[in-house]
Amino acid sequence: MKNYQIKPGNKLQLSHCDPDDTGSYEKTGEGKEEAKAITEKLTGKLSELQERLYANGDRALLIVLQGMDTSGKDGTIRSVMSGVNPQGCKVVTFKTPSAEELGHDFLWRVHQKAPAKGQIGIFNRSHYEDVLITRVHGLISDKVVKQRFGQIREFEELLSESGTVILKFFLHISKEEQKKRLEERINNPEKRWKFNTGDLEERKLWENYQSAFEAMLAATSTDASPWYIIPANHKWYRNLIIAERIVKALEGMKLKTPPAPADINFDTLKIE
Amino acid sequence: MKNYQIKPGNKLQLSHCDPDDTGSYEKTGEGKEEAKAITEKLTGKLSELQERLYANGDRALLIVLQGMDTSGKDGTIRSVMSGVNPQGCKVVTFKTPSAEELGHDFLWRVHQKAPAKGQIGIFNRSHYEDVLITRVHGLISDKVVKQRFGQIREFEELLSESGTVILKFFLHISKEEQKKRLEERINNPEKRWKFNTGDLEERKLWENYQSAFEAMLAATSTDASPWYIIPANHKWYRNLIIAERIVKALEGMKLKTPPAPADINFDTLKIE
Repeated sequence: MKNYQIKPGNKLQLSHCDPDDTGSYEKTGEGKEEAKAITEKLTGKLSELQERLYANGDRALLIVLQGMDTSGKDGTIRSVMSGVNPQGCKVVTFKTPSAEELGHDFLWRVHQKAPAKGQIGIFNRSHYEDVLITRVHGLISDKVVKQRFGQIREFEELLSESGTVILKFFLHISKEEQKKRLEERINNPEKRWKFNTGDLEERKLWENYQSAFEAMLAATSTDASPWYIIPANHKWYRNLIIAERIVKALEGMKLKTPPAPADINFDTLKIE
Repeated sequence: MKNYQIKPGNKLQLSHCDPDDTGSYEKTGEGKEEAKAITEKLTGKLSELQERLYANGDRALLIVLQGMDTSGKDGTIRSVMSGVNPQGCKVVTFKTPSAEELGHDFLWRVHQKAPAKGQIGIFNRSHYEDVLITRVHGLISDKVVKQRFGQIREFEELLSESGTVILKFFLHISKEEQKKRLEERINNPEKRWKFNTGDLEERKLWENYQSAFEAMLAATSTDASPWYIIPANHKWYRNLIIAERIVKALEGMKLKTPPAPADINFDTLKIE
């Protein structure tokens, strides 16, 4: 399968990454069905691996999801993670910071929500908003942006050195695809509640966001905490690639059945 | 289906409740398969209702699980909740309180973990440990136990009046069934890691625990926050009854598709 990982230090242009890509799969019919069948197997595998992660309790997995509005952050969680035991999987949705949160550095609230050992943590938006929306709206200077890139790298290095594997997915859709998805919400009365006028204001800043994403992806993709640019125009391909990456990451931990407690002699143990 | 709800103020004896009960279902063969098929439909329904709960964002559901060791608290979560989108379902496992937690009243750490609007919260053990393990080990007086029953009723009333529906499940197994389950853990090297010597010490206090449970169930089952005594010797029947209760509770909320934002005129809205 194709690997969409960004190599550390690479300059990149999102306009050179095709959001419509579906790798070796045909975009319709058989290709799509084949991809869906593989994804289903992968999510089954994911569920097994997660039980083992939980049982071991000495590693953690952090998944970061970023992308433009309608790029499919919620949909990814629903599609890829719904088979997982919720006891070992915590989703955190970062919204506009509260007054208390703004009273601290930008990583304060994020650090508190880092996954505990044994857990899969999913960040639906994250500390990366603090070098995206704030930057696009001119709320922070370029100097602060650069400083934050460094702070983020060091923060993620701390997590990584403490046993947390980190996967960061940028859900890459085209401007045309966003238009289609917003129009679907408008035309379907059952989906209108998802709409808010802010989405249209942000859409006007599309190019600025793409630039901010490019800088962020290049500056914060490291070996220990890589970014993947996920082609996300086709939801089924997005789900496949993300499920495949997560399974690979968990397999890479080589989790075994935890050892029996050493202070018990199981051969002579009797239950009264 | 049989209703295992405890009516408020009812005295009860757990020895009169059959942990081996499977209602109108035969214990083997067809009865079991039928129950499993119904449970699967219910968990599918549960997943749909949860999406609606999340979308609405004005109600919450709190599920409390209590029971002796090996009674199936973890298994219930895995079996009944694994199809649910983890974005809208948070499981909290309450362990021995930390020094900071002990510096506050017993409901302090619990209140912080109450589910937010739109969420299903699952307590794997809960504030009820503070009238169980503490009581059985003589760490609190009968006077304090009685006081805590009142405090719990008032705390849960606050949650209920604020839009949270509460379901409390006591997983009722027999002493013989616990013996069987502990022996399974001993005899299967893959399961030995789940074992700890403390479990055997607590088992010696079986009768004291049953009395403490009886008092707790009678004192804290209210109309707004009922306890159910779930016959739990048969895991498939336990799953069926719990899934059925949860679906009923969510259906009872009569959740509709949320309204579209009032400040947008969808008829004239154009995406550029």
